[in-house]
Amino acid sequence: MVSEKMVKLGTNRSVIRDLFEYGNQRKAEIGADKVFDFSLGNPSVPAPPAVREAALDLLQNEDELLLHGYTSAQGDAGLREKIAAYINGQHGVHLTADNLYITVGAAASLTISLKALTEEGDEFITFAPFFPEYRVFVENAGASLVVADSDPEDFQIDCGVFEKAVTAHTKGVILNSPNNPSGVVITEDRIRELCGILEKKQREYGHPIFLISDEPYRELVYDGVKVPYLMNYYDNTIVCYSYSKSLSLPGERIGYIAVSEKAAEWKKIYAAVCGAGRSLGYVCAPSLFQQVVARCIGQTSDVSIYKKNRDLLYNALTEYGYRCIRPDGAFYLFVEALEKDANAFSAKAREYELLLVPADSFGTPGFVRISYCVSTEQIERSLPAFRALAEAYGK
Amino acid sequence: MVSEKMVKLGTNRSVIRDLFEYGNQRKAEIGADKVFDFSLGNPSVPAPPAVREAALDLLQNEDELLLHGYTSAQGDAGLREKIAAYINGQHGVHLTADNLYITVGAAASLTISLKALTEEGDEFITFAPFFPEYRVFVENAGASLVVADSDPEDFQIDCGVFEKAVTAHTKGVILNSPNNPSGVVITEDRIRELCGILEKKQREYGHPIFLISDEPYRELVYDGVKVPYLMNYYDNTIVCYSYSKSLSLPGERIGYIAVSEKAAEWKKIYAAVCGAGRSLGYVCAPSLFQQVVARCIGQTSDVSIYKKNRDLLYNALTEYGYRCIRPDGAFYLFVEALEKDANAFSAKAREYELLLVPADSFGTPGFVRISYCVSTEQIERSLPAFRALAEAYGK
Repeated sequence: MVSEKMVKLGTNRSVIRDLFEYGNQRKAEIGADKVFDFSLGNPSVPAPPAVREAALDLLQNEDELLLHGYTSAQGDAGLREKIAAYINGQHGVHLTADNLYITVGAAASLTISLKALTEEGDEFITFAPFFPEYRVFVENAGASLVVADSDPEDFQIDCGVFEKAVTAHTKGVILNSPNNPSGVVITEDRIRELCGILEKKQREYGHPIFLISDEPYRELVYDGVKVPYLMNYYDNTIVCYSYSKSLSLPGERIGYIAVSEKAAEWKKIYAAVCGAGRSLGYVCAPSLFQQVVARCIGQTSDVSIYKKNRDLLYNALTEYGYRCIRPDGAFYLFVEALEKDANAFSAKAREYELLLVPADSFGTPGFVRISYCVSTEQIERSLPAFRALAEAYGK
Repeated sequence: MVSEKMVKLGTNRSVIRDLFEYGNQRKAEIGADKVFDFSLGNPSVPAPPAVREAALDLLQNEDELLLHGYTSAQGDAGLREKIAAYINGQHGVHLTADNLYITVGAAASLTISLKALTEEGDEFITFAPFFPEYRVFVENAGASLVVADSDPEDFQIDCGVFEKAVTAHTKGVILNSPNNPSGVVITEDRIRELCGILEKKQREYGHPIFLISDEPYRELVYDGVKVPYLMNYYDNTIVCYSYSKSLSLPGERIGYIAVSEKAAEWKKIYAAVCGAGRSLGYVCAPSLFQQVVARCIGQTSDVSIYKKNRDLLYNALTEYGYRCIRPDGAFYLFVEALEKDANAFSAKAREYELLLVPADSFGTPGFVRISYCVSTEQIERSLPAFRALAEAYGK
């Protein structure tokens, strides 16, 4: 009667969403301050003041028909020029407005890019742990997702495992650094090694293999860690970006796709991006926020709060006996469960009112994800519960 | 290397867009006031003042993290409740928030609904003339578009033609009233006849056939014409709506899908809608404008300006010898070309600086579409050109 596949996708809520709903129910029962909800990746630091200032000024002074009117499908030309100039200034590449396509956020950037590239039988590789919606987006495009495990010690790319995963069917690789859920930033050495393998495989198979850089967390890094800009390491690179995290605007749905000017036949790729956006029903990105972003390029929400949260949580948890990957970026702490089954561990944690996401759906069983994009005070209040949970496991 | 189908979709610009780009070039050459651009369906009446007031108030007084945060994928529950209550009050149906899914505009409403419903081999029927993107959206879902010609006299549904178009593969029918490009509002009698055929065919084939009502122009009607609410005529109805025209917010991308509570297994359909939205990369509709719309439900941009434009243009053109369908709604005048080939006629009209869209891509050769969502003054200035064009054809 209807698409059973879509019914299934619409019915099987993610484990994250389930935990979040449980948390809301539990908060109603015992009080919001007694539940330590670490489930969602929703920014907890407000947008920089320039966002509100820009929106107010635009609403007060711009012509409404222009402000709320359609932009071109690829986004306002002025905005695209500004973004290109910013990227060029930051990373020494040579993009123009014609390399940029403004999207309705990171999920749209990915679904559009994947649909633009996919031909029958194509495979995309990503690295575990990975954002579970990658599988949904890749399958929507008609391709298959191939998962390459990361190095279990540090969750960097395991290039040996990766090389074995590449086949003649590999159309592209999705890399997410800083990573959700591990918080790991892939090192420059590992990037070079990855790109070397890709170059070799391109020659071997005689067709391009695209590197899709999903980087909504690019600006959320700590202690001066650098996130290499992939276009400088590999020509066939497509960057999928979103302002959801950097400007704390996840609900406003705005991001972009940048096609490297050094990619093979980049104009053709860009045309396919335009076609895929049209085909998926994306008419243009929200027009007011296109103008807001144009006035806020280069601004970032106050990252020092996330850093403070990270330090507090990482230091406390390692002291209590947890094994954690020390995150260099994003706002997630990836923690080894204190028993083999992460779902059982997450259930146990609930007894201490701790809501921790079991990471099986991220492709890495035996871990939980802790989103520390919460108030510092919530973390402080939760520490005795984390300590008690560790003690329950004999730590 | 990439999807050739997407390259083609991204490269072949629509005839509308081509004409619009030509117009911009021509305006630069001879002055904006000398070119009579009737190509685009972009509202020319600003949003009602309540939109700006709501946006300013929200930006000044609401918590930014909530205002710009993710809403649930199906949209803010409060907004959905308000829309349901409004629809129920207007049309005597019994929707709740759970029947509504907020989207990123009408194109998203359609792509999501089609993807939710489509199983292999499905067909969707629509009536010529039709919005050309329907074909793109139906094909994206993996279905085929079947076109039923309308009655050439009045562009109402030709029920005889329609009945022959229904097959065992028909999954649904897309109805667009008020219609783009004809401006026709389908009469209640014709709706009843259509729904009677659908009921009969459902019984005959033993499966539901869905009626998808694409109605972004519902409020843009003149002289008290009524647009029947399809849920009151047929149970398996899904309404696709957008605030682009009624609130003059086409760039902000906000609309909804409403699944009739009388549809067969409506909860399953709704789940498929949620799944399709997820699969296509729609995370949520823009959050600020979800709140703005919640405060402006039932408001409409000043339709009297469009009516004035319609009367002026319709009366003048019929006086000059053009044969026009008198539009009851939307902001388009559908005019018979003065020679057989509408493309040749559109080219001839350019010599008089009139930009009229040849309607071949709408499935109705021999007509042009005139978008009268322009300033009344532009119409007044254009009348001598329309008269001269008619005279050139011996009228």
